[in-house]
Amino acid sequence: MFSQRVENVRKNSSLVHCITNYVTVNDCANVVLACGASPIMADDPSEAAQITSNCQSLVLNMGTLNKRRLEAMILAGKQANKFSHPVILDPVGAGASSMRREALKQLSKEVRFSVIKGNISEMRALFAANIRPGKGVDAREADIVTEANLTDQIAYAARLSSMTGAVIIVTGALDLVVSEKQAYVIYNGHPMMARITGSGCMLGALLGAFAGSNKEAPLEAAAAAVAMTGICGERAGKKVEIEQKGTGSFRTYFIDEVSLITGNDVEQEKKIKRYEYKDSWRIEDEG
Amino acid sequence: MFSQRVENVRKNSSLVHCITNYVTVNDCANVVLACGASPIMADDPSEAAQITSNCQSLVLNMGTLNKRRLEAMILAGKQANKFSHPVILDPVGAGASSMRREALKQLSKEVRFSVIKGNISEMRALFAANIRPGKGVDAREADIVTEANLTDQIAYAARLSSMTGAVIIVTGALDLVVSEKQAYVIYNGHPMMARITGSGCMLGALLGAFAGSNKEAPLEAAAAAVAMTGICGERAGKKVEIEQKGTGSFRTYFIDEVSLITGNDVEQEKKIKRYEYKDSWRIEDEG
Amino acid sequence: MFSQRVENVRKNSSLVHCITNYVTVNDCANVVLACGASPIMADDPSEAAQITSNCQSLVLNMGTLNKRRLEAMILAGKQANKFSHPVILDPVGAGASSMRREALKQLSKEVRFSVIKGNISEMRALFAANIRPGKGVDAREADIVTEANLTDQIAYAARLSSMTGAVIIVTGALDLVVSEKQAYVIYNGHPMMARITGSGCMLGALLGAFAGSNKEAPLEAAAAAVAMTGICGERAGKKVEIEQKGTGSFRTYFIDEVSLITGNDVEQEKKIKRYEYKDSWRIEDEG
Repeated sequence: MFSQRVENVRKNSSLVHCITNYVTVNDCANVVLACGASPIMADDPSEAAQITSNCQSLVLNMGTLNKRRLEAMILAGKQANKFSHPVILDPVGAGASSMRREALKQLSKEVRFSVIKGNISEMRALFAANIRPGKGVDAREADIVTEANLTDQIAYAARLSSMTGAVIIVTGALDLVVSEKQAYVIYNGHPMMARITGSGCMLGALLGAFAGSNKEAPLEAAAAAVAMTGICGERAGKKVEIEQKGTGSFRTYFIDEVSLITGNDVEQEKKIKRYEYKDSWRIEDEG
Repeated sequence: MFSQRVENVRKNSSLVHCITNYVTVNDCANVVLACGASPIMADDPSEAAQITSNCQSLVLNMGTLNKRRLEAMILAGKQANKFSHPVILDPVGAGASSMRREALKQLSKEVRFSVIKGNISEMRALFAANIRPGKGVDAREADIVTEANLTDQIAYAARLSSMTGAVIIVTGALDLVVSEKQAYVIYNGHPMMARITGSGCMLGALLGAFAGSNKEAPLEAAAAAVAMTGICGERAGKKVEIEQKGTGSFRTYFIDEVSLITGNDVEQEKKIKRYEYKDSWRIEDEG
Repeated sequence: MFSQRVENVRKNSSLVHCITNYVTVNDCANVVLACGASPIMADDPSEAAQITSNCQSLVLNMGTLNKRRLEAMILAGKQANKFSHPVILDPVGAGASSMRREALKQLSKEVRFSVIKGNISEMRALFAANIRPGKGVDAREADIVTEANLTDQIAYAARLSSMTGAVIIVTGALDLVVSEKQAYVIYNGHPMMARITGSGCMLGALLGAFAGSNKEAPLEAAAAAVAMTGICGERAGKKVEIEQKGTGSFRTYFIDEVSLITGNDVEQEKKIKRYEYKDSWRIEDEG
């Protein structure tokens, strides 16, 4: 039940350690507070590991990456692994430069992730970062997810899940939340989410809050976070249309909705399909 | 009169140099502008001292601290001391890591502060950072401030004031603003302030603006800044409730209120008690 | 036609690489998205040049400058020059410290700019940074632009344009957009723009978006960006007055307006005069 996942976040007031970019850091902190958890944004190597010890989850966001912050990510990531805290990776722009491709390779090698979320091109970079020599390269390529190629793309994400051990979230017009044998396809969302900065980063931060308060059900927790984010986008988008406002107000209203939504709302308004792998990927549950 | 303190800020357009964290830096800059002062956020050691020379006050905020920014804080702090500019310390998360405890110790040793503001756990860290060997440790401990332990907590803050030479502000459900022999207890505020990031940092920045424009009355200026912040929280909270909005709107409305409120409004809506030390801490003034 | 300049930005979805300060970086990213372009904020020297190769324009903003970011600016600037991408310089606080004066000198030497935007004191620093020994110093000084000294100030900006090869934008109560032989005086704007942080930085980011999508008409594109920014300020200011809100809402509404305004709106609501140099600076076009 998604409602339970949302309510657990509201009840537990868990601490989410975010090492993130300075573009959307304020949005990330505010959205974590809005959902009922508490953020700590410390990113210096000299304290990153110590800070993460006292938190319930860790979010690593690769936007505006630099050497110092990468070092902090690795130190905090290893510490979180030691304490079995869920670690979320948001490989922002992972394919955009050699530096980020290298960083993604290093992070993939040194830290075990519970959840990895990205768009198609970030997923391609993730795939490349996780190929081991002599293992051969899968011919299948990540592609924009549509109804037509849905099970292919689920299979691709499941392969990534098996390579990394993480729940894989592929964002786009449809969102996929995939483990090795199970998957959610999530249809919630609003086009205005792509017209503000921070929609993706805020989802990454929320995934941290959901993972920290729902350790018994990581896949469902991730799916609930994705659905809730999409629903809050829909609600904010509707308000903006009615009031004839623009993207500035959308951003504010999105955080409003995260602070107001209940588990029950998410349960009622979610638009999902659930798949399972049995010989092939099959729909188990519609809606 | 608090009204005078507020109006002085509006009239003087003083320059406030803030060395602060990147999570809430935008809120801090906007709130300083909203109250009538002007912010400069330069944080590089190569210019920090020079920048501060041309300002009227300096705010040091320890959030997302790193070595480079700490160096800038010390350079700017010493320069501000040389020029007798008020220096405000906001020791964000001061007890959260060894790095921050060390930084607080170093700042306490090298810079003289006019105002230090923090929650209970930050005050404990401040106490620890200011104990001198051979001076003995006070048995009294900082604790959540309630009506029941009020004078004890005022006495604790007054001890901190005497150790540091600064006006001490302890934030919580009640806020204390305390010097060695005088204290304000401030009852203004709204629960939503704890549900956004930046409430505390914005108060820190406002304390800089108030100190820079009210050098003749540092304690009253600090108390006025705390009361004004609480009143703006109350007003923003009321609007959010009426319009059934959430924490995103609260943040926007809070800054709105800071830009709109007058000295007279603060005078009318403040909820304070004033204490003085004469053998013991006694109420001098109610309301 | 300004309308065409605005519509080109909406249609082209160009990528704008911004190396900017952390105070207003979120506003800059959101305003670039609001106008129809896409921002990338990468600022590390190890990837700055590579990132800029895949963009259509580059914006260098000197706020909260440090050595690492300056290095990234120079690397990205040179790369953008090599690819003939327009480079916009926003020399924030350029006169405020020796470090920034030195940085401006270095940037002026190593990078060719298409557009340079600043207030009067930043223009003075720009002038100082571009004087070559043995060239003599112009007695004329930058001054607050008024109707009385308009052509003098246009001439000063034109001199700067000839020294730097860039379109020069002098911001103030009136805005000047000036090349060697042509100039726009722009009367749009709202006093509330000076009461939030980021108005200037957002204009800088928008200049990047406009330059990247209007390479055939750099002067007109810059003037259209300045006019649009002023008009969005007017519209947001009107809303705030009607709703009796403050500066927090103004900031949100400003971005709303950027996301909503059309080329036709800008054409209708622009308040401009166009000057040309023929022996002297003469009005060519009113309104």
